[in-house]
Formats: sequence, structure tokens, C-alpha cells
Amino acid sequence: MAKEITKRSENYSQWYNDIVKKAGLADNSAVRGCMVIKPLGYAIWENMQAQLDKMFKETGHVNAYFPLFIPKSFLSKEAKHVEGFAKECAVITHHRLMNDPNGDGVIVDPSSKLEEELIVRPTSETIIWNTYRDWIQSYRDLPLLINQWVNVVRWEMRTRPFLRTTEFLWQEGHTAHASKKEAEEETALIHEIYARFAEDYMAMPVIKGVKTENERFAGAVETYTIEALMQDGKALQAGTSHFLGQNFAKAFDVKFSDNNNKVEHVWASSWGVSTRLVGGLIMTHSDDEGLVLPPKLAPTQVVIVPIPKPNPEILEVASNIKQKLTALGIRVKIDEDETKRPGFKFAQYELEGVPIRIGIGMRDLVNNQVEIARRDTKEKMPVLLEGIDQYVDKLLGDIQTNLFETAKAYRDDHITEVKNFTDFKDALEEKGGFIKAHWDGSTETELKIKEETKATIRCIPNDEAESSGKCVYSSNDSNKKVLFAKAY
Amino acid sequence: MAKEITKRSENYSQWYNDIVKKAGLADNSAVRGCMVIKPLGYAIWENMQAQLDKMFKETGHVNAYFPLFIPKSFLSKEAKHVEGFAKECAVITHHRLMNDPNGDGVIVDPSSKLEEELIVRPTSETIIWNTYRDWIQSYRDLPLLINQWVNVVRWEMRTRPFLRTTEFLWQEGHTAHASKKEAEEETALIHEIYARFAEDYMAMPVIKGVKTENERFAGAVETYTIEALMQDGKALQAGTSHFLGQNFAKAFDVKFSDNNNKVEHVWASSWGVSTRLVGGLIMTHSDDEGLVLPPKLAPTQVVIVPIPKPNPEILEVASNIKQKLTALGIRVKIDEDETKRPGFKFAQYELEGVPIRIGIGMRDLVNNQVEIARRDTKEKMPVLLEGIDQYVDKLLGDIQTNLFETAKAYRDDHITEVKNFTDFKDALEEKGGFIKAHWDGSTETELKIKEETKATIRCIPNDEAESSGKCVYSSNDSNKKVLFAKAY
Repeated sequence: MAKEITKRSENYSQWYNDIVKKAGLADNSAVRGCMVIKPLGYAIWENMQAQLDKMFKETGHVNAYFPLFIPKSFLSKEAKHVEGFAKECAVITHHRLMNDPNGDGVIVDPSSKLEEELIVRPTSETIIWNTYRDWIQSYRDLPLLINQWVNVVRWEMRTRPFLRTTEFLWQEGHTAHASKKEAEEETALIHEIYARFAEDYMAMPVIKGVKTENERFAGAVETYTIEALMQDGKALQAGTSHFLGQNFAKAFDVKFSDNNNKVEHVWASSWGVSTRLVGGLIMTHSDDEGLVLPPKLAPTQVVIVPIPKPNPEILEVASNIKQKLTALGIRVKIDEDETKRPGFKFAQYELEGVPIRIGIGMRDLVNNQVEIARRDTKEKMPVLLEGIDQYVDKLLGDIQTNLFETAKAYRDDHITEVKNFTDFKDALEEKGGFIKAHWDGSTETELKIKEETKATIRCIPNDEAESSGKCVYSSNDSNKKVLFAKAY
Repeated sequence: MAKEITKRSENYSQWYNDIVKKAGLADNSAVRGCMVIKPLGYAIWENMQAQLDKMFKETGHVNAYFPLFIPKSFLSKEAKHVEGFAKECAVITHHRLMNDPNGDGVIVDPSSKLEEELIVRPTSETIIWNTYRDWIQSYRDLPLLINQWVNVVRWEMRTRPFLRTTEFLWQEGHTAHASKKEAEEETALIHEIYARFAEDYMAMPVIKGVKTENERFAGAVETYTIEALMQDGKALQAGTSHFLGQNFAKAFDVKFSDNNNKVEHVWASSWGVSTRLVGGLIMTHSDDEGLVLPPKLAPTQVVIVPIPKPNPEILEVASNIKQKLTALGIRVKIDEDETKRPGFKFAQYELEGVPIRIGIGMRDLVNNQVEIARRDTKEKMPVLLEGIDQYVDKLLGDIQTNLFETAKAYRDDHITEVKNFTDFKDALEEKGGFIKAHWDGSTETELKIKEETKATIRCIPNDEAESSGKCVYSSNDSNKKVLFAKAY
């Protein structure tokens, strides 16, 4: 089974598709650009959701639900928003089907045409700010710290499972504040939560920074981003948090009276991460044998495999181990299937990325031990039954750390600082990864570099100090280095 | 604040709308028939989801995600399904907007017309069974026990928040089995889970039964239902579980080879509950002061209110109580707002249905006690600080039980058995509720009764023994009594 996966070195893109398909993460659907998220893929997303939701709630956010449909006219109320967002989308024009008088199928009933077309939400700023107008009168109504977990649709021409699909799942937070400062602090808080989630749970190192004007969210004053690096040297934008200023409040006329009865427009942020994170997770850790999952997000953390097949004695020991591990909050499965050989099972669990495999044979039991195999390094070791729960618990932590450290070493090794455009192009082509270079701050230069190299400015990193230099492309003055990369 | 709610006795329908609006459960949206679910309403739904999801997973089900869109042609593949379902729905015909050359808004780009229209899912049997064809070859691939938590759209002409909306949230389970017996057992298992959830968590008594052919799900062989009774004497269908036979497997050509290599069509079930349950919850327990929530589903179970306002001494005691209650898994909030009077807060928490309110004043502290008020009976009592955690924990259980018993007494009191059609109509008009009567089993009679009285057959109850009698309408022979009611 594992041997059917294309090697990364041969064709990285095909390798990714093979993992998605063969590990059972997602499948194509009958609808162009839309995927079916299969149980394993969805269970990973559920674990991501649970953790993020917890982090949002711990910082005072609540969930709500706004309509799937947006009246067409809403999209053009915020000028930049419509330019950036509203063009490629699913348009609802009718609300009824009827039997085809000339056949046995159904046709659209022409008499059911809508007065105003509805758009399936590509993002919900417009409908939410239209609603907030009714909810906000006074500073006492602020802040509103609302999030929703929903599906959105953007009609994409080229799609890839998880990374870019016409329909995807995400959370979108939309907050309203009484001051610019508060809205900016909220934007930064979420940026920090996203980075912490990516690093501590996904074991995916990220660089925090802000987007250039050209790469900014349509309608935002500032877009904060976390950028990760995949194993093929391409960057992945993994989560964005936008300071929206008063743009949407002005577009939808949302005002509040402050404690001096002065009336002002409300300040806003919005932020989101999506099922794209599942794609990032796959690309960060997986190998030629299949999926590799960080323990904190793995639906099954430990699988116990009887060797060569289940018998009452082995199953009793397995069940004892499971009980002990479950008591520590570890997610364990015992494979009781009698029809498949251990070798087949080992390959299957490697493919599915289960972090720890425990093999139990009769000879092991004589020695009061089992064999433990870790997915990340593929090491195997005999482990005594006594204290196995503590051993496994610690090992899960070690695997989590090792995955992060490995990914971070790769990422750090793939940040190349260059001083001229020849080196820029060489580094990009030969090594890939992030290219750090001075940039003159103009969109013109940014677009020319993109045209010539396909690299975009991923972010202006937060932790990059100001420094005087010359733009790598135009040689104009620059006061900060930025990070370029080809990106998903 | 509470006084703004219309009394149930004056106008039940307006009372319901007032609760939804003023307790902050939901709001109308700019899109016809679609609601905004506000944070309190959504938190109730989240608690429902969490419990149901747990019950599904404990019985071997997993979650997945299938596309929002369904190709139009899929809907006509199962003949009865298209008749019952596919007519009033949102139809996507285009995938792009463009700037209006004659104005400053956007218009639909005529060149983006889809080859085949897409329908926003009203339910997902068709797209899922089209996918299952690729997933199922052998009996080894069965059963598939898959659920999804999603939004669906049915273009409704008359809508009411939660009870009937164009877009709503639900879970839909779609299972595939190797035998008729297994699929029937699955249908019954879910029926049982729904009933248990309704009674044990929502404190909403339900009658389990099967639907008549006329009321059956479009495409089902048998529909199992749980039916609840609202305080105005109207019934609410609260959850349905469908045995689909081989209908969808045949429509989408899904076959498997059994362990003798015989090829057969797959057997199926589907089942769902929706945000309609939130409407049922409101209508079952709430009163003229506002929402009443069963403790197991209440987002906040206990609120602590300092009297007349917070001071360090009171807050310290409040914080100690909160800590003890939280340790027991109880959801507690301390109201630290200094700007509002206790009377205002009391009314607000009554309106929002918080099951237990703890008032703490300085005089209470002298006596080492607090005042506890329960939302369901409105009783108040002084309670000693010592052992207060155990007291509150037990009281939450008592409130849960009391709500169920009260609702059950009302329901049982509103099942009227009649032997002739005059009594039928009298009971329906004067008392409302369920009318139990013999029925001849014909759709013709069922529809005539509906036409004359607006009552439908809610179900043929599981626990109703066969008995010989004469149909209440036609006087034809009948072998079982069924339950009629006007319904939401």
C-alpha cells in the first residue's frame, strides 16, 4: 500500500495528492473544485477546531451564526472589498425547480427568479456589519467579540484538496470596538493565538508579520499573517488577522455614542483560519511512507497491534494498556482485525500517521514487554509493561517536540538573505524557501519581482529590525528587509 | 424588561417571537427567511451538538463533510425524492460578478453561466450516495456510519426563527449496510438516541412512532419520528430517522459483493435533527418572564449577583463559590457589572433562562449564607455557604427533573382518545394536543381529516398495541390507534 505513494523527490505535487487520497483524508466530488472531507481528514479538522475554539473562548470570544447568503448589493458597499472579493463566487438567481415538460428531469422554474441575486458568502464582513448596525448604539454594546465556524465559497479556477478549494470550512471572527487601539490590540491578540496554535499544536513553525498593501485583505487597513514553509520550499499563508479600521462601519453606517455622547464610527477586526491548515499540516511533516501527524492533533495517538493476530492473552494486556493510557487522556485504538497481517497493518497505520504503534506478541509477554514504534523517526524499541503509560505519555511529547524542531531546522535553513537580484533568483530556483531582502516599499517593484520570479512578499516580519539598505530589485533606498517566497 | 414580553395566554405566537428576540436568541437577517443565530441561541445549539455528537461517536459513528452544492441532475435520480424535496431550493446558475458598465454596482457576468445548475443542498442523500459508489465494493467496506454537521437550505414561504427557516443548521447521518436487518437496526438505534437526548437533556417528553406513508421522508421506506407537544397544544416533529431500503443505492448504482461474492445493492439509513430543536426547547419550558432552560443545556447554569453591587468582600465569597462549583463541572458566571441594579439583573437573567441565581448581600455574609433563586419555580431560599456546592449540584438535577415532569404532565394531560369525528373536532379545538383515534390506514382519509381540521397524523406510536376498531372518520375497520395533532 505505502509503495503506491509517489516519492517527494520525484514529484512533490503528486506525492501530496497521493497522501490525501490514499491516507483517506479527502476525495474529489462530483462538484467542480469541491472536495469531500473523509472521516480521517475531518477528525483532524475537528481537533483543530476544538483547540482553536478553546483559545478563542478563553480570550472572551463567543460563537454565533450569520446567513450563508449575501444580497448582491452588499458586496459593492465597501469599494475595495468588492474589487478583491466579490468577483468569482456562486450566484443564486432562482428559488425553484420544476418538472421538465419535455423530459423526465427537472429544470429551473423561470418564474422563480429572485428580485436581487444572492451570493454564497466568500467571507462575511458585509452581512455581519449590516447586522451590527442594529446591535450597536452605545459604547455599552461594545466590544462585540464574535466568531463563526462555517463554510464559504470562492469560485477557484485551479483547486487542490485542502489548500485551495471552491468550498472550504473556516472560522471567521468579526469584532467591533470603541477605539482604534482596542481593535488593533484584538487584531494582534488573534495573530498571537494563530501563531501559538500553529507552533504548539500543529508543530508548524511560522513567521509573524504584516502583509504589504498589495497583498492585504480587500477592505483592511492592515493584515497580519503567519507564514509557514512547506517541504518543497514554498510558503503557505496559514492564518490572517485584519485590522479593518472604520471601513466597514462607514460602508454600513455603524456608529456608537461614546461615554461623552459623542457619535463615532465603530472600529473593527476580522480574522480567519481554514481547512487549508490541514493541507499545511500534511505538507509540513509527512514523508514518503505517508501522513505524519503531531500527537496533539492526531485522532488516534496510539494503536496497539497484536502479533501475529489477536488472542485472549494479548487482548487482555492490550486492554490494560489502553485503560491506563485512556486515563491519561491519550486516544488509543486496539486493532482486533483477524483478517489482516501485521505487516499490512503497520503500513496502513504509517500511511495514516498514527504517532505511536505498540506491537504485542506472545514472546513479548514472556518478557513483560512490548515493542514500541514511533512514526516520526521510525525507531523501534522494546519497552517494559511496567510504567508503559508514563513512557508513552512522555514519548508523545517527545514526538511533538521533535516534529516542531525538525520543521524549524528545515525552515531556518531555508531563509536566505540576498543583496542583489541575481542572487535572489539563484536562491529561489536552487534552494527555494524564504528569500530575505531589502525592498523599496513600492507595489510596482513588488509586482515586477512577482512577474519575473513568481515570488511574492510573504510578509514584513515583526521581528525584523529596521536597517538601511538598497532594494534588491530597484536599488532604491529601503529601511527594512522583507521575506519573499513562492507560495501556495 | 421582562414586562415587554407578550403573555402566552394573549398571543402565543407573539410570545414566542418576543422570547427569541428579547432573550437574544436570534435575529432576522437581510436575507428573506434566514435568521442570525445570536450568541445565546448558538451556545444552546453548541451544547446540543456536543451531547449528540458524543452519543453518535459512542455508537461508532464518525463525522465527515460533503459538498454544499448538488448538481441538478442528481436530484431527479431518485423519483420520489425529487417530488418531495427538490422543488423549493436555492439554484446557482452563474459563478462570476462584474462591474456594471452602466453604474457603480455589480451585475452577474452573463458569460459565467454554469453548464449545469447547482442546488444548495436541501439534504444530502444524493451527493453522498453518489460518493459512496466509489467507496463501497465489498462487504469489508461496510458498514459506513457517517454523520455531518452542516447548513442546509429549503426555500420556505412562511418562516419562523428556529422552527422553520430557509437556511438551518443540522446534522445528517447517512449509513450504508450489508443487510436490511442491519440498516433497520441502525434506524431504530438513532431513533432511540434522539428520544433519549430529547428527554434526558432537553427535558422534553417525546412520543416515538413511525410516520404514515403520506408523511414519510421522500425516498424512505419507513420514517421513525419523535413527536413533542408545545405549550399551545401543537405538536413538533423533533427528529426523524429513515430506513431507506435500497432506494438510493439503486438510484446511484451502489453495490457490494458479500462474503459469497454475490453482488447486491447496499442498504441505507439517514437521520437528522436541526436547530428546530432550539425552538422546541423554548416552547416546551419557557414562561411569561422569558426563557427557561434545562440545566444540562444551559450555557450559564448559575449566575452570582452581588447585592446591591460588587465589593471586595462579596466578590471574594462569590469567587470561592464559583471555584467550588466549577470543580464540579458547573458553568458559573459572576456578574461584576457595577452600573446596573440587582432588580434589572434579576429580570435579565430570568429572561435569559439561567437555571439558578445566587444573590449575595452583606447581611447574608454575616449569617454565612446566600440567597438562591431557581428559575423554574421562582422559589427563593436562604442557603448556608457550607456545602453550597453540593446543594447547587443537587438543585440543578432537581430542576432538570422538574422541567421534564412538568412538561410530561402537560403532555399526558393533552392526549385525548376519541371514538367519533365530532369528539375529534371538539377535542382538537377546545383542548388541542394529541388526539388518539382509530384510522383506516388510507391516505385518502388522512388527507380529508387534514383538510377539515388541519390536524395531521403525527405518528403511529410504537407502544400502541394493536386493537380492533372503526376509523374515526370513515368508520372503516382499523387495527391500530394513531396520534393526530396540529403541528409546527
